[in-house]
Amino acid sequence: MDKILRIDVGAAGGPKAKVEPVGEYTGLGGRALTTSVVSKEVPPDCHPLGPENKLVIAPGLMSGSAASSSGRLSVGCKSPLTGTIKEANSGGTASQALGRLGYAAVIIEGERQGDDLYMIVMDGSGVKIEKANDFRMLPNYDLAEKIKTRFGDKVSLISIGTAGEMRMANSTIAVTDVEFRPSRHAGRGGVGAVMGSKGIKAIVVNAEGTKMRQPANPDKFKEANRKFVEGLKGHAVTGQGLPAYGTNILTNVLNEAGGYPTYNFKEGRYKHADKISGEVQADLETKRGGLATHGCHRGCAIQCSGVYHDKDGHYVTKQPEYETVWAHGGNCGICDLDSIARLDFMDDNYGFDTIEMGVTIGVAMEAGLIKFGDAEGAQRLVDEAGKGTPLGRILGAGAAVTAKCFGLERAPVVKGQAMPAYDPRAVKGIGVTYATTTQGADHTAGYAVATNILKVGGDVDPLKPAGQAELSRNLQIATAALDSTGYCLFIAFAILDQPETFQAMVDSINAMYGLELTGNDVVELGKKVLRMERQFNEQAGFTKAHDRLPRYFSREPLAPHNVVFDVSDKELDSVFNF
Amino acid sequence: MDKILRIDVGAAGGPKAKVEPVGEYTGLGGRALTTSVVSKEVPPDCHPLGPENKLVIAPGLMSGSAASSSGRLSVGCKSPLTGTIKEANSGGTASQALGRLGYAAVIIEGERQGDDLYMIVMDGSGVKIEKANDFRMLPNYDLAEKIKTRFGDKVSLISIGTAGEMRMANSTIAVTDVEFRPSRHAGRGGVGAVMGSKGIKAIVVNAEGTKMRQPANPDKFKEANRKFVEGLKGHAVTGQGLPAYGTNILTNVLNEAGGYPTYNFKEGRYKHADKISGEVQADLETKRGGLATHGCHRGCAIQCSGVYHDKDGHYVTKQPEYETVWAHGGNCGICDLDSIARLDFMDDNYGFDTIEMGVTIGVAMEAGLIKFGDAEGAQRLVDEAGKGTPLGRILGAGAAVTAKCFGLERAPVVKGQAMPAYDPRAVKGIGVTYATTTQGADHTAGYAVATNILKVGGDVDPLKPAGQAELSRNLQIATAALDSTGYCLFIAFAILDQPETFQAMVDSINAMYGLELTGNDVVELGKKVLRMERQFNEQAGFTKAHDRLPRYFSREPLAPHNVVFDVSDKELDSVFNF
Repeated sequence: MDKILRIDVGAAGGPKAKVEPVGEYTGLGGRALTTSVVSKEVPPDCHPLGPENKLVIAPGLMSGSAASSSGRLSVGCKSPLTGTIKEANSGGTASQALGRLGYAAVIIEGERQGDDLYMIVMDGSGVKIEKANDFRMLPNYDLAEKIKTRFGDKVSLISIGTAGEMRMANSTIAVTDVEFRPSRHAGRGGVGAVMGSKGIKAIVVNAEGTKMRQPANPDKFKEANRKFVEGLKGHAVTGQGLPAYGTNILTNVLNEAGGYPTYNFKEGRYKHADKISGEVQADLETKRGGLATHGCHRGCAIQCSGVYHDKDGHYVTKQPEYETVWAHGGNCGICDLDSIARLDFMDDNYGFDTIEMGVTIGVAMEAGLIKFGDAEGAQRLVDEAGKGTPLGRILGAGAAVTAKCFGLERAPVVKGQAMPAYDPRAVKGIGVTYATTTQGADHTAGYAVATNILKVGGDVDPLKPAGQAELSRNLQIATAALDSTGYCLFIAFAILDQPETFQAMVDSINAMYGLELTGNDVVELGKKVLRMERQFNEQAGFTKAHDRLPRYFSREPLAPHNVVFDVSDKELDSVFNF
Repeated sequence: MDKILRIDVGAAGGPKAKVEPVGEYTGLGGRALTTSVVSKEVPPDCHPLGPENKLVIAPGLMSGSAASSSGRLSVGCKSPLTGTIKEANSGGTASQALGRLGYAAVIIEGERQGDDLYMIVMDGSGVKIEKANDFRMLPNYDLAEKIKTRFGDKVSLISIGTAGEMRMANSTIAVTDVEFRPSRHAGRGGVGAVMGSKGIKAIVVNAEGTKMRQPANPDKFKEANRKFVEGLKGHAVTGQGLPAYGTNILTNVLNEAGGYPTYNFKEGRYKHADKISGEVQADLETKRGGLATHGCHRGCAIQCSGVYHDKDGHYVTKQPEYETVWAHGGNCGICDLDSIARLDFMDDNYGFDTIEMGVTIGVAMEAGLIKFGDAEGAQRLVDEAGKGTPLGRILGAGAAVTAKCFGLERAPVVKGQAMPAYDPRAVKGIGVTYATTTQGADHTAGYAVATNILKVGGDVDPLKPAGQAELSRNLQIATAALDSTGYCLFIAFAILDQPETFQAMVDSINAMYGLELTGNDVVELGKKVLRMERQFNEQAGFTKAHDRLPRYFSREPLAPHNVVFDVSDKELDSVFNF
């Protein structure tokens, strides 16, 4: 991974590709790389859809190697949804493919000329760019079918659906999985709109004929990876819960904890949660001939994914994640897994982030557009969004804009981004992360749920403010580092609880690169990434006043615990005191 | 004006009125009063439509007296459009009426209970509050007819149209004029939505049977007012231009100067400007039996208003202001005065700010919803907004949200508020005001056009960056003071050019209150108001990064002068260095 592909979409006669050495960005991967490029090359006060923004797509440091669960792909830019710097990452096969082709990053930059759409094709022989107007307004699944016809299903596809083409603030970048389905998404923050604003519809990455990236020290690498996989398989979450039930195992857990946001964050427990739990979902998947255990890319020891079939045994969508089942389910008072699976497919197809879309529909329900529980109505709304009707333009702009258009206070957002599936009043650690992360409300940026609820990496009472700032700080630092490696965030459960697994992960990086990093170096990398992101945001106009939850979370108690968000402003302001 | 009326809309059983002494706010009026109350009583990080925001309605210090042109009414709150503190002021008769009844302010506060709408009736005997559900979704003109039937046409009405009821970010508070037409508006920043969020549809102010407020020193007051009126009548702008042609006299002036934003700020000169100039408009008004010279309230020496009739001699609307003719006219490529007048009426009727709405339609035209020049299409869009269709919900949220929903960079806004009728590239002083005022893009906050273009109060080259920051600073300070007196901003032309008229104005205040203020005290008041507003905004999360124009104004040259906005960030940051 010693080269960067730059695509100048403003070049005369259409986008031009230039391959250059990785240069000053050497040694960086994933989020560390996307954040570095955006920090250095994008003016913080630029418009996210203007010519000065850039889209940076970067495999992690370990992507393309034999390291288990290392297939995360980072996408960075200034976010059209939040106005902050943004890193959204995705599973699927593209990260490994880019790594094997030797690309540390693809950077799409410049001012789009005219209205043509383009496709970038990358393989071992180089890069080609061609017009892709035939693909205009194709949803992701339909696009994948077209690509498959020409390139087969062994390539990887990075694409935008209709949402990205329409430059909607809720729009994803899709990545195909092992079955060449565009089911994996860099979901949050509207990164698809930036790709759309550059006129790039698709990137085909063909790594056929290339070899896995070779470690500097093969023996050490093999041994580290063995211990690492052993650690993943030995931990209750990564070795049992996630493979068996996927992330949706959390539904019952969060509902029991009273931290499951229900009816647009009005209550903390959903009476029908048992109908949409991971246990029920896995059982249904197995019965219908889908899969309850499945990997989103090759070489993952966790296998948290799955395949969801309808009652006739036909593919509907990949196994909907916990956050999706929550967003379209309990948050909207919908308790029918088939409807939720259909919504998941529609989101993936049009290219919407399921969290943002589900929360947006919850806000629309509060505005009275449709009733809570109306599953058909919810599908109609997603269809409007995917087709860009006037109402769809509102919904496609996300939960904050929807609330603004309908004159509502109750938009559960931070920095314009919808809160995920954990109520910050009853899981206060994640509330601190929502408030303070550089990304807008985001659970993955510092997953305090692990320690608050799952008791991984310690035990901090979720209902009390004490200790939450420190917990979130440490997790945000660790996550920023982890997001740079290409390793999936889910390894965190094992490495937080098992020092030997953490060491095996560090050893694997050292063996890959011939380095002698320590755990401390990992922490320093995380801090460095966060500092760059904070600085970008500050220059873009963000202050501590934006590191807050909406005031109604401090005003309206959440049942059943009747708690408000009461972590003090001072505590929130201490999160970045490193 | 020694009492304040507080309406608690959260009281059990419906809104409750409480009259209290003016207390700590003694000696303040207009913007100084609204800003003081909002600064002291509204948490800067609250949601503008939530229970913690307050709506403050305050006559100026001189309102209700015999002082000429002193009928401005200030409305303050946290703005639903910008998120900043907001003061929007209006002409019409209500300010004088409130002053004569002795109210320094009406403060509407608390959390609305249920969905009932209410009307407040104020007269010499006290305050009554009654349900007003029959008025639900009545546009302002229809509402005024209903009020007239019951109260006659000698009262004043302060009301919201459908936009305010729907809590749209572009929504005004209307004030009736001398003919009891709701043609005067506290237009900017969505103040109508705050009134709507409190469930108050209308305030009827009946000052019949009350006397004019008496000055502390009647002889000095009479003499000061005589000199003041003499000064207004003697100045070319206030004595000739404005009475004869109204504000629309500026169309030819700005177009000639190349600072007339055309086609959504794409060009600086409009080829059909001569068809919509103030000269043509006044001529048409006179020919059709309307009025080219008219006062929005009694006792105004300037008489800048007018009455616009259709070709059959029927009332259409009050004389559309320059900014309205521009927003719906040149900015949208529409050069038909009858269409523009109709749009002005529709805006007043639904309760939309004409600047925000015209700029929003310009953005919608750039998005391809309708073509530039499509006058019928523009009326259709305003109708959609006034009726709250899905597309109308986008448009009613203003230009910034419309651009966001349609994925466009080119939204001419600062802090979420649309720029008025002066291109900041060719009139750089007003560009500094747009960028730095506490209010979001607003020409009235520091009308540098006066000095840049009209050569009033000096001469600063509009095309060069030099001197603009100082100019804007001084004007912003003076304006903040002036907005507190109840005097119309238009007196500024005379008091900037004629020291004796400035002195007469100060003398009139001294004679009214038995004070011995100097010009310096006026400046200090202006600084104090601005400091409070800046502090509120800082606590709400605004930084110098928000005191900027959108970057495309520094990137895209404006014809015919081919200039970009090139006042440096350093200069912009120096505006508030007092």
